[in-house]
Amino acid sequence: MRFDIISCQPDLLDSPFGHSILKRAQQKGLVEIYVNDLRKYAINKYGQIDDYAFGGGAGMVMMIEPIAKCLAELQAQREYNAVIYMTPDGETLTQNTVNRFSLLQNIIILCGHYKGVDERVRQHFITHEISIGDYVLSGGELGAAVLTDAIIRILPGVLNDESSALTDSFQDGLLAPPVYTRPADYNGWSVPAVLLSGDTPKIEQWRFEQAVARTEQRRPDLLH
Amino acid sequence: MRFDIISCQPDLLDSPFGHSILKRAQQKGLVEIYVNDLRKYAINKYGQIDDYAFGGGAGMVMMIEPIAKCLAELQAQREYNAVIYMTPDGETLTQNTVNRFSLLQNIIILCGHYKGVDERVRQHFITHEISIGDYVLSGGELGAAVLTDAIIRILPGVLNDESSALTDSFQDGLLAPPVYTRPADYNGWSVPAVLLSGDTPKIEQWRFEQAVARTEQRRPDLLH
Repeated sequence: MRFDIISCQPDLLDSPFGHSILKRAQQKGLVEIYVNDLRKYAINKYGQIDDYAFGGGAGMVMMIEPIAKCLAELQAQREYNAVIYMTPDGETLTQNTVNRFSLLQNIIILCGHYKGVDERVRQHFITHEISIGDYVLSGGELGAAVLTDAIIRILPGVLNDESSALTDSFQDGLLAPPVYTRPADYNGWSVPAVLLSGDTPKIEQWRFEQAVARTEQRRPDLLH
Repeated sequence: MRFDIISCQPDLLDSPFGHSILKRAQQKGLVEIYVNDLRKYAINKYGQIDDYAFGGGAGMVMMIEPIAKCLAELQAQREYNAVIYMTPDGETLTQNTVNRFSLLQNIIILCGHYKGVDERVRQHFITHEISIGDYVLSGGELGAAVLTDAIIRILPGVLNDESSALTDSFQDGLLAPPVYTRPADYNGWSVPAVLLSGDTPKIEQWRFEQAVARTEQRRPDLLH
């Protein structure tokens, strides 16, 4: 799977993609991640990619021209299944959407900055608008990193133990049950006895009940 | 405001905190961000901070002891208003929560990894459990970066033009209206005439109507 991220602050993305699971996924040849510097497509030699909003008001707007040029260059080289714009007023990202995106081949992720991109970019070039949640960030880069990470970790072969992702919160519609590890007693706080019993069916039953109870308590909306 | 982030993969956070708005906010002395390497508090010389889950199953669990030691060291030096754990089964982050957190002085953000932390950490040390959305990431670091960025950008003095943040999506319960910048015509696609009219009250009225219409269409849940 290939990710082309378009950003006017590509440096922001160095470390999230250069370490850990995302680094290993690239080294294994399972994914390619390219961060395209929007300033290469600036409208002038000063690297301009934004301008004041028509109609006035605070905040700069990212211009259509650099984005159009960058997209045209990428799309001339291969077909993309999705051109995603990260924006707080987009469709709220869920694990279902992540699962769906993980089946695609080539995707472009455009990071907004400042007050966002010229509306004509959204009308004419973007196929999916995605928000990672109901809050505002200083740019789309963290959103792009979140989306990329969520997708890549569920691609076959990326996690060492694939069954691990299947027991995550949301994959079965439930929050994950509590987990414990050594020591069995710390500071007088002990692990539930059932987990030390070695009785696998009983442990599975306990985990399921805990997952349901936790979901019922914290996120009843996931159940009903 | 001071942020202490506790992570077993501190390198992941180099670039999000080393550039752009977050970098400038630190340079201006408005915030301090410390990333504490959990491996310094490992239980042995091999740097162990995780172990198998009691009861079996895929995925490692972060141990209580290194986290307890790290927290004790930090909390001996100053008082913290919140000890936040980033987890997909936490309270879903919203702009309201961001606004509330932005009033605090010192906060700790613990990043989970693998299958999460030993439940006793959550029961005894954590004051707030926060999820950035209904999806699973390879670790809590991106969540911590998202939370930190969202908080810092609204601190007084961080954005150059403070009125900019006030017109963001969610701050007034509405999504932001569309924005446009030069050129007025691109490829035959033109900017709405009202924005070129110079008639400020009419422009404000149009923006409000667009914001309401967009919210009604995309996120009616914010209105009702």
